Amino acid sequence: MTQALLHFEDFPVGEIAHYGAYRLTREAILDFAREYDPQPFHLDDAAAKQTLLGGLAASGWHACAIMMRLNCDGFLLNATSMGAPGIDEVKWLQPLRPGTELSVRRTTLEARTSRSRPGMGLVKFLFELLADSQNVVMTQTCSVMFGRRLAA
Amino acid sequence: MTQALLHFEDFPVGEIAHYGAYRLTREAILDFAREYDPQPFHLDDAAAKQTLLGGLAASGWHACAIMMRLNCDGFLLNATSMGAPGIDEVKWLQPLRPGTELSVRRTTLEARTSRSRPGMGLVKFLFELLADSQNVVMTQTCSVMFGRRLAA
Repeated sequence: MTQALLHFEDFPVGEIAHYGAYRLTREAILDFAREYDPQPFHLDDAAAKQTLLGGLAASGWHACAIMMRLNCDGFLLNATSMGAPGIDEVKWLQPLRPGTELSVRRTTLEARTSRSRPGMGLVKFLFELLADSQNVVMTQTCSVMFGRRLAA
Repeated sequence: MTQALLHFEDFPVGEIAHYGAYRLTREAILDFAREYDPQPFHLDDAAAKQTLLGGLAASGWHACAIMMRLNCDGFLLNATSMGAPGIDEVKWLQPLRPGTELSVRRTTLEARTSRSRPGMGLVKFLFELLADSQNVVMTQTCSVMFGRRLAA
């Protein structure tokens, strides 16, 4: 059964959704860090213990990339998404450890139609990356552009 | 010749630095998109032409990851960096196309010592990702924590 394509109108302000299950392995942490963020606290256990992170933890950009994937699978690939103009804010709140299962809690903060593009609307979300469905390890706010149902 | 380790004191407000040379291939764009951001405009030329991006373009998160790598190689791996608590803002200004050579222009916006951790200071940077040393394709502001030289 395919779900109907999500449009701007399908994200009521105040709605909360929870989705995704991504098991973060040590190997994935090291692979990402080697390519994009080779700081010692993302690559080496002993070095990481001496730092503020207190042990090996994923790059914050790895957390962002994983959240993007969870958002794609969770709703964006089944929506009229036209991408995002940017990110309002990212907060890395806790170290992201190997073995954690990650999911996303999405809260719809605002929704407004575009003046310059009547067929489009912007929805502002708070995305929280949850470790083992409990601890919030990262928050992110951003606005995503969607096609409007009325315009289709 | 090794450069002296950079501390908090080595980032005077107003300083501008330009560094890095990262050739972005089509294959790298597709690899990242398949793993983290499989939206059609990051994966498929024909589909991308129908979208706001007007053609295949890298994921915005891929741009962030590459900028992180350029920052690591450009100065962070030779500094007393303790990571960053988050990101103030990201703006994706232009589509990032295959074949582009990327570099970073870094401007030091603010510097302040930490009250709670006297051995630490926070430096706020504007990072601009440049395509072929000309067009700004992304901007990012964030504060990085550094060890202070006086405390060492």
